[in-house]
Amino acid sequence: MTWYTRLWRYITLAHGAGGKETEEIVENLIVQRVPPNLWKVGEGSGLDSLDDAALIPLGDEGYVAVTVDSYTVKPIFFPGGDLGRLAASGTINDLLMVGAKPIAALDAVVVEEGFPLEDFNKIISSYIDTLKSNNVALIGGDFKTMPKGQLDGIIIASMGIGVAKKPIRDSDIKPGDKIIVSGYVGDHGAAIMAAQQGIGANTDIVSDVKPLTDLMIPLIERYADAIHGAGDPTRGGVAMLVNTWAKKTETVIVLDEESIPIRPQVREYAEMLGIDPLSLANEGMAVLAVDSDYADEVVKYMRKLGYDKASIIGQVYKPKDPRHAGRVLLKSVAGGIRILEPPSGELVPRIC
Amino acid sequence: MTWYTRLWRYITLAHGAGGKETEEIVENLIVQRVPPNLWKVGEGSGLDSLDDAALIPLGDEGYVAVTVDSYTVKPIFFPGGDLGRLAASGTINDLLMVGAKPIAALDAVVVEEGFPLEDFNKIISSYIDTLKSNNVALIGGDFKTMPKGQLDGIIIASMGIGVAKKPIRDSDIKPGDKIIVSGYVGDHGAAIMAAQQGIGANTDIVSDVKPLTDLMIPLIERYADAIHGAGDPTRGGVAMLVNTWAKKTETVIVLDEESIPIRPQVREYAEMLGIDPLSLANEGMAVLAVDSDYADEVVKYMRKLGYDKASIIGQVYKPKDPRHAGRVLLKSVAGGIRILEPPSGELVPRIC
Repeated sequence: MTWYTRLWRYITLAHGAGGKETEEIVENLIVQRVPPNLWKVGEGSGLDSLDDAALIPLGDEGYVAVTVDSYTVKPIFFPGGDLGRLAASGTINDLLMVGAKPIAALDAVVVEEGFPLEDFNKIISSYIDTLKSNNVALIGGDFKTMPKGQLDGIIIASMGIGVAKKPIRDSDIKPGDKIIVSGYVGDHGAAIMAAQQGIGANTDIVSDVKPLTDLMIPLIERYADAIHGAGDPTRGGVAMLVNTWAKKTETVIVLDEESIPIRPQVREYAEMLGIDPLSLANEGMAVLAVDSDYADEVVKYMRKLGYDKASIIGQVYKPKDPRHAGRVLLKSVAGGIRILEPPSGELVPRIC
Repeated sequence: MTWYTRLWRYITLAHGAGGKETEEIVENLIVQRVPPNLWKVGEGSGLDSLDDAALIPLGDEGYVAVTVDSYTVKPIFFPGGDLGRLAASGTINDLLMVGAKPIAALDAVVVEEGFPLEDFNKIISSYIDTLKSNNVALIGGDFKTMPKGQLDGIIIASMGIGVAKKPIRDSDIKPGDKIIVSGYVGDHGAAIMAAQQGIGANTDIVSDVKPLTDLMIPLIERYADAIHGAGDPTRGGVAMLVNTWAKKTETVIVLDEESIPIRPQVREYAEMLGIDPLSLANEGMAVLAVDSDYADEVVKYMRKLGYDKASIIGQVYKPKDPRHAGRVLLKSVAGGIRILEPPSGELVPRIC
């Protein structure tokens, strides 16, 4: 009897939500199947590291970074963006988060029969325009259709290729590092939930979806040694990302709720739904782990680059008790402290 | 008014069939949108060349080859293979066809809520096993779910990365070159159609799905200069591929029907349905354009490698009249000659 027959017989929405259940299915059904010598190429990082992008060594030239994601967001046009902009931004950001300069992309599109060509045109234009304005070449792709009723709309799988001289690997995060966010937390997740549920359509919650090229390229050039980790907190939000980091590096990460920038309307909407804004998806916001000697300077520089909500929100610690390794704690505004669990269950499907 | 509003307002199955309509939508809505400097990276080949994989130059080291495709085949288990084996084979073959050695793959999987975990497990095992036996590392991926009724089953987007010292580019195909197939034509397409339509289930038509590593790697090493073009005739089959070549190189390609290896049961089944076997998909068969001085030797070598149906099936000519450039002619067994058009319309959806 294998692990899954004991727990589940069917795939649930939670398996794809990017939280604990996704981790479990990916670990058990994929990662464990791949022999360690086929997890990565040479001294690169691959499946074993579960970073935003994989790295293939190029000898003296550095690394080729590669990433692929499927984008299924619904609705395909949402406040602040659309599926095309989301796919291009997600691809670019995944490359930036491992310290790579994005150079090229490919897309594999599957569309339902009967899909309006006008909408397809808008989505593809948006995808191409986002790549173009970030100087990323679209060098190939695939286009397929599925019969009516077999797919609801359109799915874009987008793949990106970049080059990294000195990659950022989450495994380099160290006790003492400060945790920094580049901007408001939870905008994308809240915008999609409001659009899907038709609640709060009169609020002005707008997705943050955008490529972070103008932030990350200058940061990588200037602070290559000080940035120990970088991540794109999409599904599962900041809560999932920071939990992954704590687990991977066997540290304890403490976040200070008061210093986390959250828009009032996002906070209110999340409260109304009983959701922690820290588990809402972001699509144009980076979380960094930065050497504490440079953290203030990095935040100042980020603000100079136009990211004026950039803030230190926490710190990495060596666990006093090894049994606490991998834990994330949240100091609440009220003064208490609680464990911030990795999100589980399904908040809402098709968030990205 | 743009081109598409004149012709269509909605996406049709034919747009995704890999024939003329796919060419039209990709050319008009994607290729024409991308500024020429963003079609490719440096002296590589990208969107403009429409080869099986794109090539990014690495300086003296050669090229990185990259490819991505979505696999939607239905049924997901079919005679001769399954979705996992199809995705891995397709990815590997696309890299081989540009002369690259496949080294790594990533997958982005989207699964419908309620999909049996047992089936997911079989498909993923099959994907990983096929990569493994071809020494291709699985270095990353993405896993998402869609609510019940919004996706029929499972889609795998599979991306591959390879390295090419001396790439094969279809644009190098020259008048005089012989057209060679590595084996029987049409097996995959016929197998899927039989499985989908429940007709001919008692025949023994089996998909040819497999990676062509054991054929292409020795060929690339030995005949790098003699092989001018290589292609994986999937959707649209040999007819589509050879038409693309003739058009791209402004040549005329003449095929000799008598010399094309087709299994009797595939020929019969295609005749029954009124379909040309040359437009049926193949998933484990290569078409090569080879310098005529080496063609016989190459065929002999392919047979020695176990591809005992490898055959010369035609030749590339310089058009006598420039208006004939891009045409493919078929000398029929009966002695007549006819134009072999690129397939159009939708034979059957979800063939690969």
